[in-house]
Amino acid sequence: MKTLTPCAFTLGELAERLKARLVGDSDHRVTGLATLLDAGPDDITFLANKTYLKYLPETSAAAVLVHPAYGDEVPCARLELDNPYLGYAELSRLFDPLAGQAPEGVHPSAVVAESVHLGARVSVGPQCVIEAGAVIGDGCVIGAGSIIGAHSEIGADSRLHANVTVYHGVSVGRRAILHSGCVVGADGFGFAHDGQGWHKIAQLGGVIVGDDVEIGSCSSIDRGALGDTLIGNDVKIDSQVQIAHNVQVGDHSALAGCVGIAGSTRVGRHCMLGGGVGLSGHLTICDGVQVTGMSLVTNSIHEPGVYSSGTGAMPNGLWRKNAVRFKQLDDLAKRLARLERDASGAAQG
Amino acid sequence: MKTLTPCAFTLGELAERLKARLVGDSDHRVTGLATLLDAGPDDITFLANKTYLKYLPETSAAAVLVHPAYGDEVPCARLELDNPYLGYAELSRLFDPLAGQAPEGVHPSAVVAESVHLGARVSVGPQCVIEAGAVIGDGCVIGAGSIIGAHSEIGADSRLHANVTVYHGVSVGRRAILHSGCVVGADGFGFAHDGQGWHKIAQLGGVIVGDDVEIGSCSSIDRGALGDTLIGNDVKIDSQVQIAHNVQVGDHSALAGCVGIAGSTRVGRHCMLGGGVGLSGHLTICDGVQVTGMSLVTNSIHEPGVYSSGTGAMPNGLWRKNAVRFKQLDDLAKRLARLERDASGAAQG
Amino acid sequence: MKTLTPCAFTLGELAERLKARLVGDSDHRVTGLATLLDAGPDDITFLANKTYLKYLPETSAAAVLVHPAYGDEVPCARLELDNPYLGYAELSRLFDPLAGQAPEGVHPSAVVAESVHLGARVSVGPQCVIEAGAVIGDGCVIGAGSIIGAHSEIGADSRLHANVTVYHGVSVGRRAILHSGCVVGADGFGFAHDGQGWHKIAQLGGVIVGDDVEIGSCSSIDRGALGDTLIGNDVKIDSQVQIAHNVQVGDHSALAGCVGIAGSTRVGRHCMLGGGVGLSGHLTICDGVQVTGMSLVTNSIHEPGVYSSGTGAMPNGLWRKNAVRFKQLDDLAKRLARLERDASGAAQG
Repeated sequence: MKTLTPCAFTLGELAERLKARLVGDSDHRVTGLATLLDAGPDDITFLANKTYLKYLPETSAAAVLVHPAYGDEVPCARLELDNPYLGYAELSRLFDPLAGQAPEGVHPSAVVAESVHLGARVSVGPQCVIEAGAVIGDGCVIGAGSIIGAHSEIGADSRLHANVTVYHGVSVGRRAILHSGCVVGADGFGFAHDGQGWHKIAQLGGVIVGDDVEIGSCSSIDRGALGDTLIGNDVKIDSQVQIAHNVQVGDHSALAGCVGIAGSTRVGRHCMLGGGVGLSGHLTICDGVQVTGMSLVTNSIHEPGVYSSGTGAMPNGLWRKNAVRFKQLDDLAKRLARLERDASGAAQG
Repeated sequence: MKTLTPCAFTLGELAERLKARLVGDSDHRVTGLATLLDAGPDDITFLANKTYLKYLPETSAAAVLVHPAYGDEVPCARLELDNPYLGYAELSRLFDPLAGQAPEGVHPSAVVAESVHLGARVSVGPQCVIEAGAVIGDGCVIGAGSIIGAHSEIGADSRLHANVTVYHGVSVGRRAILHSGCVVGADGFGFAHDGQGWHKIAQLGGVIVGDDVEIGSCSSIDRGALGDTLIGNDVKIDSQVQIAHNVQVGDHSALAGCVGIAGSTRVGRHCMLGGGVGLSGHLTICDGVQVTGMSLVTNSIHEPGVYSSGTGAMPNGLWRKNAVRFKQLDDLAKRLARLERDASGAAQG
Repeated sequence: MKTLTPCAFTLGELAERLKARLVGDSDHRVTGLATLLDAGPDDITFLANKTYLKYLPETSAAAVLVHPAYGDEVPCARLELDNPYLGYAELSRLFDPLAGQAPEGVHPSAVVAESVHLGARVSVGPQCVIEAGAVIGDGCVIGAGSIIGAHSEIGADSRLHANVTVYHGVSVGRRAILHSGCVVGADGFGFAHDGQGWHKIAQLGGVIVGDDVEIGSCSSIDRGALGDTLIGNDVKIDSQVQIAHNVQVGDHSALAGCVGIAGSTRVGRHCMLGGGVGLSGHLTICDGVQVTGMSLVTNSIHEPGVYSSGTGAMPNGLWRKNAVRFKQLDDLAKRLARLERDASGAAQG
C-alpha cells in the first residue's frame, strides 16, 4: 500500500513514547514500520513471538522493538520493553496514515438536519445524512455516505468509516470505530404466528454501544424488541458478525468474523468467540469463556474455559465413511454395551 | 432508547383495536409498552409465555395483555384475548415511533430519473438514487442513501431503510421491509471453466419478491442466471442471509440470521431455517420443514419435520479426544462388527 | 425480469462469434436466451449437461447450442461446439442488458476530488465519492453511491455496482466486478491485550486485487496489518464472504458464499471452497484443493484433492441420540479396545 502521508520519528522520540529503553542512536530517524523480514533500513520492526526469533539476525531494519531477554541478539538498534506486542500496537497507531487526516467541518453535499448537535472539530464527509435530533460528539469523523438516524448519539472521538448505517435511537460510546457496511440498530427478527402466517413485532428497543468498541465491515447489530441490545466497553467485533435483538456482550469481549449470536443471549466479560461461532438464543455465557471456530453453542456455559464442537476437515473419501457412521452412532454404542454385557456374563458364567 | 414521538392510548382504545376484553378503567392512558419486569405505571405489558407467570404479581404496569386463563392473577387492569403474543405484536406496531414518520416527497438531494413512476404519498430520502423506468408504489418510504436500479418495481406501502441496494429488473411486492445494507439482485455466482480459468456467465434473470416480505440487514438475494430467483409471500429473512441465484423460497417461510442457500434450491412453504443453516444447491425441501441452527443439508427433504446436524460445544479437552475418534469412526464400527461375529461364532461353537 | 434493452442476433452472427458450426438458417434472428424448458420461438438455448437431454425434444427454442454428439437429437436449428457451457457463458454476456449501458462522465451529484485521475470513457454514478489521489482506469463504471478512498486504484474496464466501498490505499486490477455492499480494505481484526483490555493495532497494509476478479455482494476483504492482503488474478468471490488481513488467495480460485478465511492464511491456485467453509488462520492450502460446504479446516493441506468435515442433517430425533453419543466417543473407543483385548486373551487362553 502506498503511504498517504510520510511519517518520521527519531528512535529517541519513539523510546520516550513507548517508555522503552533505547540501545542505539537516539537521533536516527525511521519512516516506516514493517515485519522483521520486510523491514528496510528506514523502518522499525518488532519481535513479539519466539517463532520469528530466527529472522532476527537477518533483519535489515534500523531498529527492533524487543523484550530485554532477546536484546543481545538484535543486530541493530533496539527498543527494549516488557511487552513488545503492545509496543507494536502503539507504534502502529503512530504510523497510521489516517490519524488526524479528516478535514474539519461538514461537506457541502452532506445533509444534516437543523436540530442535529455537532460537537467541536467534527468532520462530516460527502453524501452523509444525519437526521433530526442526532448528537455527534467532539472530534468525531463521519465517513462519506454514512447515515445516522434520528435521535442517535455518537460519542466523542469516534470514527465512522464510509457507508456506515446507524438507525434512529442508537447510542454509540466514545472512541468507537465503525467500519463500512456495518449496520447498527436494524430491526430484530421478531414475528408472531397466527397459525397461518407472520405478524411483525415492531422493535421498540434500541442499541447501546459502550466506549472503545470496534465494529467490523458488514456486521449487523440489531435493536432490541423491548429494551436495548447492549454492547459493553472495549468490545471488539470483527466483520460479517450478526448480533440479534436484546443480546448483551460484556466488556472486553472479542468476536471474530462471521460469529452469529441469537436473540437475548448474554455473553460475559473477557470472552473470545472464534470465527463462525454460533450461539443459540436465551443463553448465558459466563465471563472468561473462549469458543473455538465454527462451534455451535446450544446450552449456557457457567464455567470459564475453552469450548469447542464440530470436527476438522479430512480427505473426502475418509470423511464419507465416517460421516455415514455418525448416523449409526447410537446403534453402535448400544451394540457395544450388549457385547460388554455378554462378555461379562460369559466371564462370570 | 429514547422515544421519538410520544404515543398515548386509552385502555378502551386498545381493547377495541385488539378486540380484547378489558377489565379495568377504559379511560386510563398508557404511553409505553414494556416487559412485565420493566413496565412502569404508564406502560402496558403482556404475558405470552408461562415462564414469566412468576413476574406477573410484581409488575408495576398499568395493564397486562393476558390469556383469560390467567386473568385473575393480574394485579392491575387487563386486556384478555386468546393469543396475547399476537396482541403484543399488534400493540408493538401501535407504539412504533417510525410509523408514519417519513416526510412525503422527494428530498432535493435525491437523484430520481425522469422516467421513474412515483406513486402517491411516496417519501424518497436524502442521497437516494432511483434509476430510469423504476416504479415506486403508493405510500413507499425509500430511506436515505438507498439505490433502486433501472426498471425495478417496489410495491405499495413498502419501506426501504437507509442504504439499501436494489439492482435493475427486480420486483418487490407490497408492504415489504428492507433493512439497511441488504442487496437484492446482485449477480449470482456463475462461471464456466475452460480448463484454465473462469468465464463469467452473465446473470440475465431477476428477483421476484412477494408481498409482506422482510429482508434483514446486510442480507443478499442474488438474481437468477436465466429465470428469476423467487421469494414467496410473507417470507421473513433475517440479517446476514445469503440466497443464491434461482433459489425459490415458499410462502410464510422464515430464515434466521446467517442462513446460506446455494443455487437453484427450492424451499417449501411454512419452513423455518435456524441461524447459520446451510442448504446445498439443487435441493428440494418440502413444506413444513424446520432445520435447527448451523445444520448442513446436502440432500433433499421430502417429509415435514425437524432436521438437525452437527454436535454441540463441550469443554475443549473432551472435544479433542472425541473429535480425533471421529476420524476413526468407520474403523471402530468395523472392529465392533468383527467382535460381534466372533462372539456369535463362539456362542454357537 | 423485464429486458432493459432488446437484443437481437442472427444465428449466423452467433455462430461466428462462438466459432460454432451452424446447422440451420443463418438469417434467423433470436432475441433472447433461455433454458431448454423456458425457451420460446425467439430464443436460443443450450444443452450443457446430459441430465437435461430429456428436455431436448420438447424445446420450443429457435436454436440450441449443443455438443456435436447430440446434434442429431436437436429438433430445431443448432450451433455445435465442443464446450456448450462455455458457449452459453459467452452468449449470456452478449445478451447482458447491462453491457455498455452506463452513461459516460461524472454525474453532477458525485463528489470527485480534484487530484483524482479519471481515465477515458469513465462513468461515475450519482452520489459517488472519489477521494484525493485515486486513479480510475479507462472504461470503468462506478455505480451510484460507491465510495473510493484516497490513493486507491481501480484498473481499466472494471465495474463497481452501487454502494460499493473501497478504502484508501487499495489496488484493484482490470476488469474487476465488485457487487453492492462489498467492502475492500477495512481494518483487519488486530488488537494487543495488556491483561486488562484491548489496544488497537492500526492496519497499515493495503489490499491488492488482481485482474478479472469478481467480489460478491456484502463481502469483506480486510486490509493487511503490515504488508498487503493479496487476491490473485481470476479469483471469484461470492456473496457474504470474509477474507481477513494478510490472507493470500491464488489465481483462479473460487470461494462460494459465506466462506470465512482467518488472518494470514494462504490459499493456493485453482482452489474451490464450498459455501460456508471456514479456514483457520496462518494455514497453507496448496494448489488444487477443494473443500466441501461448511467444512472447518484447522490444519494446512499439502495434497490436492477434496476435503470435508461435519455431518449432514438427519431427523432431529435420530440426531439427538447420535449427537449425545459423540460426547462419549472416546469412551466408546476405549471400551471397544478393552473388549478386543479380552476377546483376544480369551482366544489365546
